[in-house]
Amino acid sequence: MDEFELIRRYFSRAGAERADVDLGVGDDAALLRVPEGVQLVAAVDTIVEGRHFPAGCGAQSIGHRSLAVNLSDMAAMGAAPAWATLALTLPGADAGWLDGFARGFSNLASAHGVALVGGDTTAGPLTVSVQILGHVPRGSALLRGGGKAGDVLAVTGTLGDAGAGLALSTGALEAQGSAAARELVRRFEFPTPRVQFGIAARGIASAAMDISDGLAGDLPKLAAAGGLGATVDVQRLPISDELRHCASPEQSRAWALGAGDDYELLVAVPPGRFGELAARARQLNLRLTAIGELRPGNTVTWTLHGAEFTPPVPGFDHFRRASTQITV
Amino acid sequence: MDEFELIRRYFSRAGAERADVDLGVGDDAALLRVPEGVQLVAAVDTIVEGRHFPAGCGAQSIGHRSLAVNLSDMAAMGAAPAWATLALTLPGADAGWLDGFARGFSNLASAHGVALVGGDTTAGPLTVSVQILGHVPRGSALLRGGGKAGDVLAVTGTLGDAGAGLALSTGALEAQGSAAARELVRRFEFPTPRVQFGIAARGIASAAMDISDGLAGDLPKLAAAGGLGATVDVQRLPISDELRHCASPEQSRAWALGAGDDYELLVAVPPGRFGELAARARQLNLRLTAIGELRPGNTVTWTLHGAEFTPPVPGFDHFRRASTQITV
Repeated sequence: MDEFELIRRYFSRAGAERADVDLGVGDDAALLRVPEGVQLVAAVDTIVEGRHFPAGCGAQSIGHRSLAVNLSDMAAMGAAPAWATLALTLPGADAGWLDGFARGFSNLASAHGVALVGGDTTAGPLTVSVQILGHVPRGSALLRGGGKAGDVLAVTGTLGDAGAGLALSTGALEAQGSAAARELVRRFEFPTPRVQFGIAARGIASAAMDISDGLAGDLPKLAAAGGLGATVDVQRLPISDELRHCASPEQSRAWALGAGDDYELLVAVPPGRFGELAARARQLNLRLTAIGELRPGNTVTWTLHGAEFTPPVPGFDHFRRASTQITV
Repeated sequence: MDEFELIRRYFSRAGAERADVDLGVGDDAALLRVPEGVQLVAAVDTIVEGRHFPAGCGAQSIGHRSLAVNLSDMAAMGAAPAWATLALTLPGADAGWLDGFARGFSNLASAHGVALVGGDTTAGPLTVSVQILGHVPRGSALLRGGGKAGDVLAVTGTLGDAGAGLALSTGALEAQGSAAARELVRRFEFPTPRVQFGIAARGIASAAMDISDGLAGDLPKLAAAGGLGATVDVQRLPISDELRHCASPEQSRAWALGAGDDYELLVAVPPGRFGELAARARQLNLRLTAIGELRPGNTVTWTLHGAEFTPPVPGFDHFRRASTQITV
């Protein structure tokens, strides 16, 4: 099977079918119809074996996560995702692996109405780049820098689960076999990007950001983008029952602050509108937890039980992250 | 310097500044304004060290070629390129390398009015994925499958130069030092995508395709996309004076047919309009050479001096291409 057959076989019909795709996979480029009155929203993210997932990670999870990380960028902008292209570098054409990868990618794409419109497959070390395209009504995108002093800082879902799930799947954390552990591993392998929440937050949230690189590293960026500082009460970070069951409070906090990969959103919202945003989250069966607020200045202060606290794990940095950082 | 500074330093202002970029690098995604009355055109292509360029290839050339291969896809659609995102996986943050890479990428982007609007940098084996976005007036894109039996098949520029340039730069071909050899190496390192020609061919060419994977593999795809066969007179393939000077006719033909990487276009054009298209090419200082025609059926026949001829090199295939194929 040559490269072209391989692409055709697995990716010619991945994801949703969309009426606005005039020409999909198979020519030199795709032809797409963008609605009037919108801004096009474009992002790219790459995941690399041994860096964003351990060697031997299931192909279906890799396919899912390669798209999820990009959908999370759309969610953070309040954008409706529409089309994706995939650049897949892999050591060889293994049909079983490709089948799993395509299923993981395609299931998530279909769930979000995303069509795969272009692909490129190359031999080399396993690297998956996905470019996502979507749109927002003109002027309604959620930006990092839109927050005001006094705005509530809040996060969706629970934090730290994916960090624990990764530690469980590499054997660095021992709690295999329990239902809680299985759920944490599932949270790492098949995260849910908060696309519907991002769309629901348009016009309410003043700022938003994907925190898949870890809250401790990402939150200061949101504050800085608005020319502001912030305070965060670490005690208020939403920790799942499953994570409490499998790890100590200290370890849970460390993952919640630094591990990333949860694909949750950080938002800023005027205090008078927090209730409205939380209600929209509830409609989506999603927690929204206030964890702090934006302040004048340029420093971010983390507190725990009223005392100043230094997050133990630095923000995710693809060039610094040593393999030991994924262990406990 | 962490990943984020690195991205900011080298890529925050790469390429052209465009008024239709509402938000560029630095948030979770870019916000772009697409003109009305167009189709959005999207493509992705990846280049990998040891596969698309030899280890040790100059960073500026890698930056140039990573964008050129994508601009060539825009050219093949008759599209005007506008925006690009870059997913760069590299072993480490070497400032000198990044500076060269950014210069190569940015110079070519600026020359074609392309803004870099998103980036992702990851540690790992050197892999460069670029996604390009552009647009065409609705209904005017050049497709692979638009040709009719009797249409002239023609190629831009000259073929085989990049194959020879690669062989020269790896030492597989010995002719270093001559002006002709330098020009062939330049053709490999800094190819010129035929964007202006693609736009000029709208409404005249019936089909078009980028042949960066090699004419022998790509031409049958254009024929098949139109449900047709073709004949090609190999004697008519445009070979540059520089290539004639450095290699035998047999070797030159082999590169012209199979090496790819020239970033030239293959077009089909009704015979009565070939002169008009050739005139447009001349205005761009570009050769356009008729090499055959589309025929009813489903076979492609290559002839040389009137006898049937089998192209000696298979079409470029990223999974089959052995390293020996890049030597003579």
